[in-house]
Amino acid sequence: MADDCVFCKIIDGKLPCYKIYEDDNMLAFLDIAPVHKGHCLIIPRQHRVDFPDLPDDLMGHFFTTTKRIAEAVKAAVNADAYNIGMNVGKEAGQIVMHAHLHVIPRYKGDGLKPWGKSKYPEGEEKKVQEKILQKLEL
Amino acid sequence: MADDCVFCKIIDGKLPCYKIYEDDNMLAFLDIAPVHKGHCLIIPRQHRVDFPDLPDDLMGHFFTTTKRIAEAVKAAVNADAYNIGMNVGKEAGQIVMHAHLHVIPRYKGDGLKPWGKSKYPEGEEKKVQEKILQKLEL
Repeated sequence: MADDCVFCKIIDGKLPCYKIYEDDNMLAFLDIAPVHKGHCLIIPRQHRVDFPDLPDDLMGHFFTTTKRIAEAVKAAVNADAYNIGMNVGKEAGQIVMHAHLHVIPRYKGDGLKPWGKSKYPEGEEKKVQEKILQKLEL
Repeated sequence: MADDCVFCKIIDGKLPCYKIYEDDNMLAFLDIAPVHKGHCLIIPRQHRVDFPDLPDDLMGHFFTTTKRIAEAVKAAVNADAYNIGMNVGKEAGQIVMHAHLHVIPRYKGDGLKPWGKSKYPEGEEKKVQEKILQKLEL
């Protein structure tokens, strides 16, 4: 537990939440500022800063359980679809530095268009690919 | 393999891609219309329609490997941060009906603000929580 972490305080019962799932390793609760109602956050019980800080041996359980939770949320709020996503680092929108996965219910025509798109300049894809391959070899 | 699936064709080598990772179970390649360069898609080799269709026994490997790939992408394009996310269903922005996880490099001040926020009306959180709990019990 990190003393100054809001999510650790929720886990510890020192701050309230609308809990929807918990087990020995993880917790899920409603986001207080939802994109749509039912929007929830799924977090590890242990204080882990971000996605790469999640231990390998938690990954299977975490995401298998996320499937169950996400499908239950979708059914509960009669959503048509949903996004799952994690913001990894403050420049990506991570506000609380305790890893959390968003499950965001979505509806036909709700107008949310999260990301832009672009085109690679000629030859740029190959350069980027090579750089990534180099980093993966490290 | 699904005959009419673009990603199955990529896996099968019938369509080109800038591949950055592959193993017996999964493949990663550059998105051709990136939010930022290095934006990649990570997919299971088997044709799986969406997130809940991913088999439980793949989850650990898939997301542990995603950590490696995402950190390599971040380093390769000198990103400050990244988002990982999956659009589950066409109303959530899923275009290709073969499950794919986006890794999107992010930069300080890049101005991308994907989602809006709202507030629950008084008492609504508890109702939503109860509905989700009911669905989880099914």
